[in-house]
Amino acid sequence: MGRPSSPLLSPDRIAVAALALVAEHGDFTVPGLAKKLKVSPSSLYNHVSGREQIVELLRAQAMSGVDLPDDTDGDWQTAVAHIARAYRTSYARYPRLIPLLTAHAVNSDHAFRMYNTLASILQNARFTPRDTLRTITALDSFVLGAALDLAAPDAPWRDSDRVEPALAEALSTGVDKGDAFEFGLTALLTGIDAAVNSRR
Amino acid sequence: MGRPSSPLLSPDRIAVAALALVAEHGDFTVPGLAKKLKVSPSSLYNHVSGREQIVELLRAQAMSGVDLPDDTDGDWQTAVAHIARAYRTSYARYPRLIPLLTAHAVNSDHAFRMYNTLASILQNARFTPRDTLRTITALDSFVLGAALDLAAPDAPWRDSDRVEPALAEALSTGVDKGDAFEFGLTALLTGIDAAVNSRR
Repeated sequence: MGRPSSPLLSPDRIAVAALALVAEHGDFTVPGLAKKLKVSPSSLYNHVSGREQIVELLRAQAMSGVDLPDDTDGDWQTAVAHIARAYRTSYARYPRLIPLLTAHAVNSDHAFRMYNTLASILQNARFTPRDTLRTITALDSFVLGAALDLAAPDAPWRDSDRVEPALAEALSTGVDKGDAFEFGLTALLTGIDAAVNSRR
Repeated sequence: MGRPSSPLLSPDRIAVAALALVAEHGDFTVPGLAKKLKVSPSSLYNHVSGREQIVELLRAQAMSGVDLPDDTDGDWQTAVAHIARAYRTSYARYPRLIPLLTAHAVNSDHAFRMYNTLASILQNARFTPRDTLRTITALDSFVLGAALDLAAPDAPWRDSDRVEPALAEALSTGVDKGDAFEFGLTALLTGIDAAVNSRR
């Protein structure tokens, strides 16, 4: 028996090829993906139901670096910060995927697990349901923006005579993205704690 | 004298065409842009120096809705919140442009004006130069993430039996992106104020 001339299709191989297209071109189409995999679009449809399911395979890939705590009863700021750090690092591997994922409703197991865990942590910390949703939404914005920033050039501003003294002095301290992320994350969680405490 | 069969090229027309390509495909190439404008790539180079300059034209377009306060001496949280709101709304018009812009160092007049103004506001509020840079970086992450979120579907989670009770209860309060943005912005600025005060 001869071997097939190319490896068999699988959701994993489809996701890897779609991710390569997104990294190179910022998007993928089903015909473009079929061409890259050297199969017909109808062969693809034997493995995935369509573009939506492929987007969810990509979301699962982007989130694959997020490990979740087993315990949702400890200090909420510590638990949420832990998830936020892993979420940023995991998404920063695929910056061009971010606007594609945010444009589609979440529908993958790993994403549901993360949002369920966050909601449990905040509920256990006696957040109101509305504050839980606000916190998850605000955290999502901050972390996805920070993931884009992590993939950005180390010198985000060109040297220019348009940089005035106050900005020049700030820039001279040196951009440290990890430090700025921790500063913002701590500030966000501290500020949320203050807002939520005033309503408890 | 006959009229030219197509309008004359200008940086503005080039930016509008590049923006349309990014909105549709997530990116643009100089040859693709020339094709869309029905000119040769060399005609483009009579008006712009290359891809980098086109990216800066797009950044100027994305920032065109950001009006800056004249006064940088008032309450810093009020002034920064005003800029952050305008920045989010202005960028949310072009969500697919965001990863393209964050991948390139800032080099456009309007962007320099915004960052100069933010640095002046924070310097006047007696932030250290390092805290000024941290604050600008964290704010950038939050606002760009929120701009992506604003362009996302109104129901960011699919109805699913994978939604557990704590998340279901939170979702039942109804996602309100404007409210979540204001909640996060206030929390971030409150938390930054607390951190910076402890060092003043």
